[in-house]
Amino acid sequence: MNDIILEQRIKSLKDLSGTHSPSIETIKNSINNIEIKVDACFLSNPYATDLFLRHLEDDLLKTGKLRDVLEFYPPQNRDIAKNLANVCKISEKNIFVGNGAIEIIQAVIHKFVKGRFAVTIPTFSSYYEFTTSRIEVVFYKLLKENKFEFKVDDYLKFIKDEKIESLTLINPNNPNGGFLSMDELLFILDNTKKLDLVIIDESFIHFAYEDDNLKLIESQLLINKYPNLIIVKSMSKDFGIAGIRAGYALMQEAMVSELLNNGFLWNSSGLAAYFFNLYGSNIFRDEYELIRKKYIMTTKEFFKDLESLTQLVVYPSKANFALVELPKDINSFSFMIKLLINHGIYVRDCSDKIGLDGNFLRIASRTFEENLLIVNSLKKVFDE
Amino acid sequence: MNDIILEQRIKSLKDLSGTHSPSIETIKNSINNIEIKVDACFLSNPYATDLFLRHLEDDLLKTGKLRDVLEFYPPQNRDIAKNLANVCKISEKNIFVGNGAIEIIQAVIHKFVKGRFAVTIPTFSSYYEFTTSRIEVVFYKLLKENKFEFKVDDYLKFIKDEKIESLTLINPNNPNGGFLSMDELLFILDNTKKLDLVIIDESFIHFAYEDDNLKLIESQLLINKYPNLIIVKSMSKDFGIAGIRAGYALMQEAMVSELLNNGFLWNSSGLAAYFFNLYGSNIFRDEYELIRKKYIMTTKEFFKDLESLTQLVVYPSKANFALVELPKDINSFSFMIKLLINHGIYVRDCSDKIGLDGNFLRIASRTFEENLLIVNSLKKVFDE
Repeated sequence: MNDIILEQRIKSLKDLSGTHSPSIETIKNSINNIEIKVDACFLSNPYATDLFLRHLEDDLLKTGKLRDVLEFYPPQNRDIAKNLANVCKISEKNIFVGNGAIEIIQAVIHKFVKGRFAVTIPTFSSYYEFTTSRIEVVFYKLLKENKFEFKVDDYLKFIKDEKIESLTLINPNNPNGGFLSMDELLFILDNTKKLDLVIIDESFIHFAYEDDNLKLIESQLLINKYPNLIIVKSMSKDFGIAGIRAGYALMQEAMVSELLNNGFLWNSSGLAAYFFNLYGSNIFRDEYELIRKKYIMTTKEFFKDLESLTQLVVYPSKANFALVELPKDINSFSFMIKLLINHGIYVRDCSDKIGLDGNFLRIASRTFEENLLIVNSLKKVFDE
Repeated sequence: MNDIILEQRIKSLKDLSGTHSPSIETIKNSINNIEIKVDACFLSNPYATDLFLRHLEDDLLKTGKLRDVLEFYPPQNRDIAKNLANVCKISEKNIFVGNGAIEIIQAVIHKFVKGRFAVTIPTFSSYYEFTTSRIEVVFYKLLKENKFEFKVDDYLKFIKDEKIESLTLINPNNPNGGFLSMDELLFILDNTKKLDLVIIDESFIHFAYEDDNLKLIESQLLINKYPNLIIVKSMSKDFGIAGIRAGYALMQEAMVSELLNNGFLWNSSGLAAYFFNLYGSNIFRDEYELIRKKYIMTTKEFFKDLESLTQLVVYPSKANFALVELPKDINSFSFMIKLLINHGIYVRDCSDKIGLDGNFLRIASRTFEENLLIVNSLKKVFDE
């Protein structure tokens, strides 16, 4: 297959995937002779995947317990929430377990959001795509001239001026990695108490840090103080287990009950239930904490290497990915295709992202070795 | 732990599980010294689980591909539907893939059902529990004096008299196993064309048969003839993979689009995607067909053995379970507990099922050997 046909094939896969990238499986299944060396489109900690697989091997494969996990009905939502209650240090009644964070985003938007709904752009597209006829999305645009930095005062003025009733913020934000410190978050929460709903998506929070000790930022207890707050948390990114589909959200007890009263009965798979059980163990979490910090250090190195490429503008990120801007004369889709076909590196072309005007790519940090390969491949494509 | 404490413990687990049974995992985790030998509460073909595990072993464990399945995002809904299009012989655009049939039931009821909604009882409780304020559930009761047989003419009169706008039927029905032949189904569909929606749940259809050749009953093509028809299909039962959460539904293209336009993006796990891929292969389906027939034969034997127990009334079933009635003086919950604690056999006490007045148990058929153990244990409990 020649490059042009491949490019067209990938374009049509992309069109079929809407505002998301086709998965690596979808690409592999559709394009026979493609070799993908690094999936830097996918935002996860690969060291955490290793850790999870070691436990899975010992607990399920060696013992033969995998059969039970696959054959029988998994525990119900509330049962799984019990494992999380201990970790989050809040009541299980405040926890809704989701088939990935995406199910929670869908459920919360469909069920609880109505009226004027503030969505910061650029952002994860489902926040404005999963809306209903009861919702009017109002975009708050992060500006390139401000390096996509989130200005709290300006945002609060927007919330007031636009008579916003509900809002959502991803922290750190996807696709740029911009981060709100705990102080900034508290200031926002204090000034949006009258809103119906404040959704904070912390799917990338394990990669963020406030200072050099890289301490895990914990905000779970905030839901006890702010009744309009919903914290959404994917496990796909920090634990590297997107294929398992696991996420949870923290919210008022009445909201959890409302969701569970007419749905979401067995929405976690047996493997997701196994993961949450594992996550409940102190031993696992201690091991994970080392891995988390190691990955942050790896990511910091990676960002430095990206910044050393003079053709790229790298925007500030405290997530596990960087939004990078290509020179004006380079089309981001073609660049992405070249990286994929010639070097086996799959990155996210951001040309479909609302609120991003220019030639942007989002590049995930992977293992130390893979990151070196990404940087070297970028160099080669620039040289070609 | 003595029996009374155990009984109370199980009762409280049951209360927490609503109108469903606590899963075997939940019971094992909550009650340390309980030994469950046979889960005859769970309605699945265990031989099909064996078959699936053999393929999983070869395809994912031996090759190391399990990692990819767990680490990366699974394909999106429409991608997985492509595998099913071939099997169902209808367009992928008519297929909605669900995180288990339960997700589909929830989605369809929330999104498409409104007004007077006919639900046959006894039935699977989610059909009336997952309703919204837009829905008025109208029960159609199957009568014990008719052996819970479904009388088509009487039902159609009810639909007309009660001004029903949507209906749902499980075929074969859960918990009694009553079966509508293809001729009866067609007669119903022809006479309910004016309804908004006709939901036929075929989660147990692979266990049913019209004659001695045990041919698989295929109704997928009916959705091309009846625009108001939705066919719901769990894969948990016939393939013995409830822990994976896999199901699908067939419906008009516009309905699939409406569901996918604002949700259900990555609602299948990597393992569910793997299963649907496997299901798309002719080799697997040929192997499965042998297993399916073997299990039906095993189940027929089991029903005969149950009927030989004079204390039980066994109701006619073409599913993989039988609804049985205990003598008036035996409480079904206590009987279930005795079976569980003294013999390690877990069956479904039906005392919470709306529309079942009496002491009923639902007992699933398992492997030939397990079925013998079930029958012998039932005998022993009667003798105690």
